[in-house]
Amino acid sequence: MRTWPIQERNAEVDLTSTNGGATGERQVRALIDNLADAIRAKDVDALMTHYAPDVLAFDLLPPLQYRGADAIRNRVSAWFSSFQGSIGFEMRNLSVVSGDDVAFCHSLNGVRGTNKGGAKIDMWWRATNCFRKIDGKWVVAHGHSSEPFEMESGKALLDLKPQS
Amino acid sequence: MRTWPIQERNAEVDLTSTNGGATGERQVRALIDNLADAIRAKDVDALMTHYAPDVLAFDLLPPLQYRGADAIRNRVSAWFSSFQGSIGFEMRNLSVVSGDDVAFCHSLNGVRGTNKGGAKIDMWWRATNCFRKIDGKWVVAHGHSSEPFEMESGKALLDLKPQS
Repeated sequence: MRTWPIQERNAEVDLTSTNGGATGERQVRALIDNLADAIRAKDVDALMTHYAPDVLAFDLLPPLQYRGADAIRNRVSAWFSSFQGSIGFEMRNLSVVSGDDVAFCHSLNGVRGTNKGGAKIDMWWRATNCFRKIDGKWVVAHGHSSEPFEMESGKALLDLKPQS
Repeated sequence: MRTWPIQERNAEVDLTSTNGGATGERQVRALIDNLADAIRAKDVDALMTHYAPDVLAFDLLPPLQYRGADAIRNRVSAWFSSFQGSIGFEMRNLSVVSGDDVAFCHSLNGVRGTNKGGAKIDMWWRATNCFRKIDGKWVVAHGHSSEPFEMESGKALLDLKPQS
């Protein structure tokens, strides 16, 4: 069982070097670390430096799709604001696949914290991020976060936990 | 408004040629066409030829994740069996990004049909597929399908429609 938050870092990785797939994976993992740190710090500006202007995201909450970095900035700002203090954020089962200029990752992501209403939050969801290297810099081009739902009740299953 | 099912095809594309990103995109689009045709025909074997053995999928229904081609085969078989006759399957807003050996796509996917209980099905969801070229052949390495859910009720939003 990992502690919250994880402090694994690849801070020295140059996100703009120009080598192949193995380097790509290392750079993408560093980007993912930066995204996680920005979430823990609730730093919207730091987070958004890693998104393509034309990013398209499928989020936990409606609408069906969020088009463009501004839409994601608004959504993330609202999410950060819903917490008291910092966010405990963890990624499990992270898998990263990278080519020279296209990459993807998937993981189970969890948050712990307290919302503005005083309720404890402890929730996991499935996350996919897809990346492009544009003008020598890796950015998130597509994100997909979700919970499965129960067929009979139509309820999203918000209390599922990773098995390890 | 497109008719159901779409019959766009790239049937002549060689899925194993060895060129770069533009060729990759053409090959991946042909693979996506093949996946769609297999769904419409409810042909599990044809569908599964396009999945990596170690594919990991996040599906509409629990569990949180499906590990490996056998788990996906079981899930898809159950889904196909739940329909009377063929499945009307459509993809909207398809975007494909491909490098030499890694690619991803996202789309809004819809099905129309009649289930075994006689109920009409007309449902859209968000779909992300991630691909790898392994031993010269493109395969699905990761898939993510979902509906957003309403925060207040916790209900999955199963009746959302694409806006165009």
